[in-house]
Amino acid sequence: MDQESPIGGHISRRFDSELEDIRNHVLAMGGLVETQVNSGIQALLESNSEVARQVAEGDHVVNSMEVKIDEMCVQILARRQPAATDLRLIIAIIKTITDLERIGDQAEKLGQFELELIDEGSTSTDYAKLEHLGNLVSKLLHNALDAFARVDDQAALKTIKKDTKIDNEYEALMRQLITVMMEDPRTIKNALRVAWCARALERIGDHATNICEYVLYLVHGKDVRHIDYKDMKNQIRGK
Amino acid sequence: MDQESPIGGHISRRFDSELEDIRNHVLAMGGLVETQVNSGIQALLESNSEVARQVAEGDHVVNSMEVKIDEMCVQILARRQPAATDLRLIIAIIKTITDLERIGDQAEKLGQFELELIDEGSTSTDYAKLEHLGNLVSKLLHNALDAFARVDDQAALKTIKKDTKIDNEYEALMRQLITVMMEDPRTIKNALRVAWCARALERIGDHATNICEYVLYLVHGKDVRHIDYKDMKNQIRGK
Repeated sequence: MDQESPIGGHISRRFDSELEDIRNHVLAMGGLVETQVNSGIQALLESNSEVARQVAEGDHVVNSMEVKIDEMCVQILARRQPAATDLRLIIAIIKTITDLERIGDQAEKLGQFELELIDEGSTSTDYAKLEHLGNLVSKLLHNALDAFARVDDQAALKTIKKDTKIDNEYEALMRQLITVMMEDPRTIKNALRVAWCARALERIGDHATNICEYVLYLVHGKDVRHIDYKDMKNQIRGK
Repeated sequence: MDQESPIGGHISRRFDSELEDIRNHVLAMGGLVETQVNSGIQALLESNSEVARQVAEGDHVVNSMEVKIDEMCVQILARRQPAATDLRLIIAIIKTITDLERIGDQAEKLGQFELELIDEGSTSTDYAKLEHLGNLVSKLLHNALDAFARVDDQAALKTIKKDTKIDNEYEALMRQLITVMMEDPRTIKNALRVAWCARALERIGDHATNICEYVLYLVHGKDVRHIDYKDMKNQIRGK
């Protein structure tokens, strides 16, 4: 795969530059969403109301980027009538930005949780439990966006595999929280908040995995959703 | 809006019948997803392991329908190069089936929760709390699918408005569950399960609302996501 120019050349240079323009918009949206997620995690871990507010208020930019890119995709489909790889690229982008927008929603929730918490005078010590999960999710999202930017199917495959680690970490954290709540019912409210945040992080991991599946679809033209990792690897190798 | 033939006529009859074919597949997928959701709610309320198993095992059919319809959309985009309303219909379908598939995932979760519960010898009395929320969500989904089938923008708009009711019911239920847990810590495990199910139901409501937004997009060619209900109504009236 030519990583310098993953889209390939067209007879029409203008078409090339239009595709490149859409792709750059998606990368910018991905960058913003990644910042939102990392800031959301930081706000929780550091009990930082300023960062939390930025995240909660920044989501509308992500939303308007989705609407704009969607419109660009419809325009290019209508005017250029792309085929084969170009068509797959547009479809992959239409799907990717839906997941990016929903990752943004989850990041916004992290910010809002932190703001509520500060309002109630709570501290961040409970949120230390989220640090490991937060790191895993942040890394997974970064790798997914990287795989998308470089149209790298092998990186996408590796990233999909790592989502299992997040699911396991999430389950372990949940069991731990239930134990804490049962031991001391006064902790229930806070423990539930940690649980909602953990769930938001886990969902971000799922959306990042979806993006990796679109990369595989883009490269291989096969729909690799809904099959497990081993089958996925075999299908891709078989091509 | 001509409700008999929302797609409109084309010079090519074969193109018409292809579009109609895709649309019928989406309606069939919608019907199956609706059954899955209703069965998932029934399994919880009636503590019915047989229904729970059917729901948990039926999700792969929903998944394969999504993959199949996706492929049909890509084919028709490549071969027919649709424009204007037809193009919007295909885009709306590509987005709709993603949400349908995720509604299916949430229904599957309801089935799995119930199976775990039966394994542990719990009864369904705790789940009675979910009945009202379940009814609201089931009705919202039905109305959303109906609005999609009839390409009815007014019905879509009405349905979107009703999602607020679901969100309020969900918040009320959550507050109630926290109170119960604090009063009797032995109920924590079960109350958390009810909370996860409520969350799954609330998410189904969100996805149904997304489908209504695609109906508005299809009819009006405007992107009405991310704006509030009042603005949405004004934008549509303004057209």
